[in-house]
Amino acid sequence: MRKGHNLLAVGDYNQAVILDLIRRAHLGLSRVEIAVETGLSAQTVSNVARRLLDAGLVREAGKLIAGPGKPRTLLQLEATSRYAVGVHLDPTVVTFVLLDLAGAIVSDHRIPTPSAADPDVVIAVMAEEIRALLERESVPPERVLGVGIAAPGPLDSTRGILLDPPLLEGWMEVPLRDALADATGFPVVLEKDVTAAAVAELWVDSGTHRDNFAFLYYGTGLGIGLVVNHDVLRGASDNAGDMGHLMVQADGPLCSCGRRGCVGDLVVPHRLVQRATAAGVLGRSAPLDGSVDGPVEHIDFDATDRRFSDFARAAADGDAAAVAILEEAATHLARALVSIVNLLDVDHVVCGGPFWRRIAPVMRERVERLVAEDPALIPSHPIVVENSTIGEDVAAVGAGCLVLDQTLSPRPSALLIAG
Amino acid sequence: MRKGHNLLAVGDYNQAVILDLIRRAHLGLSRVEIAVETGLSAQTVSNVARRLLDAGLVREAGKLIAGPGKPRTLLQLEATSRYAVGVHLDPTVVTFVLLDLAGAIVSDHRIPTPSAADPDVVIAVMAEEIRALLERESVPPERVLGVGIAAPGPLDSTRGILLDPPLLEGWMEVPLRDALADATGFPVVLEKDVTAAAVAELWVDSGTHRDNFAFLYYGTGLGIGLVVNHDVLRGASDNAGDMGHLMVQADGPLCSCGRRGCVGDLVVPHRLVQRATAAGVLGRSAPLDGSVDGPVEHIDFDATDRRFSDFARAAADGDAAAVAILEEAATHLARALVSIVNLLDVDHVVCGGPFWRRIAPVMRERVERLVAEDPALIPSHPIVVENSTIGEDVAAVGAGCLVLDQTLSPRPSALLIAG
Repeated sequence: MRKGHNLLAVGDYNQAVILDLIRRAHLGLSRVEIAVETGLSAQTVSNVARRLLDAGLVREAGKLIAGPGKPRTLLQLEATSRYAVGVHLDPTVVTFVLLDLAGAIVSDHRIPTPSAADPDVVIAVMAEEIRALLERESVPPERVLGVGIAAPGPLDSTRGILLDPPLLEGWMEVPLRDALADATGFPVVLEKDVTAAAVAELWVDSGTHRDNFAFLYYGTGLGIGLVVNHDVLRGASDNAGDMGHLMVQADGPLCSCGRRGCVGDLVVPHRLVQRATAAGVLGRSAPLDGSVDGPVEHIDFDATDRRFSDFARAAADGDAAAVAILEEAATHLARALVSIVNLLDVDHVVCGGPFWRRIAPVMRERVERLVAEDPALIPSHPIVVENSTIGEDVAAVGAGCLVLDQTLSPRPSALLIAG
Repeated sequence: MRKGHNLLAVGDYNQAVILDLIRRAHLGLSRVEIAVETGLSAQTVSNVARRLLDAGLVREAGKLIAGPGKPRTLLQLEATSRYAVGVHLDPTVVTFVLLDLAGAIVSDHRIPTPSAADPDVVIAVMAEEIRALLERESVPPERVLGVGIAAPGPLDSTRGILLDPPLLEGWMEVPLRDALADATGFPVVLEKDVTAAAVAELWVDSGTHRDNFAFLYYGTGLGIGLVVNHDVLRGASDNAGDMGHLMVQADGPLCSCGRRGCVGDLVVPHRLVQRATAAGVLGRSAPLDGSVDGPVEHIDFDATDRRFSDFARAAADGDAAAVAILEEAATHLARALVSIVNLLDVDHVVCGGPFWRRIAPVMRERVERLVAEDPALIPSHPIVVENSTIGEDVAAVGAGCLVLDQTLSPRPSALLIAG
């Protein structure tokens, strides 16, 4: 049901609009510029600015001399006034970032995902890492707005529960959100990893382009974060973004779904490493668990990670067998991306995630070309395939951004009265 | 760039909110109820109501006695105060509907798509049909808000041009929007057929459920209209909704894209008729143009339409070969829908379009069951597969709704100041 707007909420909305403008302006903005940009009255801008100064969220910084009038005082975001923690739980690696109020990465680090089958142990490790991170950066808890955590789906976002993430053994029905809140004392928001990555890309975006894009998430698993009209697409149960079972090859390996040729199963790092091992790219390494053709039963994440680096290096050095494996993977990925582009009419595909950067030099341009040349591609505009500028931290940064977003971003829905 | 809201626009927004509320209320609404529903002040509601009454868009109709107070005057939409025309150009059939301001279908009819390769001739026929329709219903031109036309993609929505619709021979780079505006004298909006169908479903929806759904459009071609957060997903160039090249069978017929097993090529009416002919379902009919395996070069739309009816009737009567053909088609459709559900996390699939109703009795329940049982399905919530209640007119109704939508619907963007 749509609702009319009420006047009380407009103040909050305008405050969020102004804070967002100041955040995005590199050198700060004067009250006059803010009034021009927003269309709000000088009095309203002045009142909101006073509230933001009192709360310590912005500061007056420098003067702008523009024409014959009085110099204008610039308002800048007080980036160190508040912080957010972002965590990304991937089956192979857990990433932690500390973001300031401007969304800048103050600190980041990674640990191998603790292999304990008991999620409680993993959650305790996370809480301790967050405590140590804040202590190291001398951030007092009262300046922390909250913790965002990105995790593999499917998840129950209402209850904050991981339902049955395929590659996290023992993580069935784990109440991650509340458990991490209990363990840290901070409010926690939980988001699917691919969606968090898309949030991060939106957050760092200038806001002038990439209104419709897909974030190709290449981690231990494969996923796709979707942005439509400059908004993240979450779906009915916040589980949007699963592309793994898109069929791209008639006679591919047997997937866990019982069919052959699913793109996720064809291109995930574990499979490329298996293929590289079989092709002799990795020297006399012992084969990993599981055959090249057959459902993945168990993955040695640590070994896969190391061997994937070796494999990527071989491809970058021009090893013919390694390049051939990546060429085939690029073909599969491009095929799947064409399906997604045709469905959603996105014009950008941003690629990232824990394993992407290592193969990006061989893959990006190739995938872009294959998409452009695909006779099944419907939209007539160019499809830009680009690497995430945020790098391997992207999902963790997105999780932190979610926390900032709840504080900073103007939402038209804030104009509407609930129930 | 986000903008602050300005007070001038709020009036228009509130007017649209109130008109939308009145439109959706079956028996009308009192000013008091409107104030409660919207949270707007009694004075604001009263002012807006006056403006709507003066414009003839609503009328006072009856009194509501609720408790001890004074009876409340009900405001109802004046449905016959304005009209919109909706047209759907499908390669097989052109549908015309006349909608009143409430979105009710006042009149509808269909003609076989003129087979003239010259689009100008087709456009002239459309304009004449619209003129005759308005005359038949005694609707004066000044009460017509405009014409909406739904057409196969891909299209250039900025220039109002059909780019190269695969099944409309001779329709390359046709400026349909402006040509139809010139021929009718009405403003014209152009929308991709699948998107128009989704608009129609949204419009007739009560607004309380189906915020995320896919509209499976089964016309001469196959497409999918997408709705996310109760909004139609159009994409970067308004060409979203192409699912035809989703791969669902390893050894399917050769598609125009050069690959095998594309769902569109497997399940479109022309293919089912070809298969039914080959299986002897249609008696001693001469084969249609083109082989069962190979790109479709030319379709005899009229013959396909008639034979499709015969085929669907045979399936409904339990003809084993006909049922087997539909069972196979259901498998392919379900496979493609699972991919779409996994990507977008929709919880409803609404099925319709010119050819759907004939096979719906055999297909709907079967597709729903196959989706639910698919081991590749990710979301854990039920996926409801339902038939469109609007029927074969759905894309034409949606095109007409677009015209009404531009007049009636509240948009948060109306709160934002342009440039």
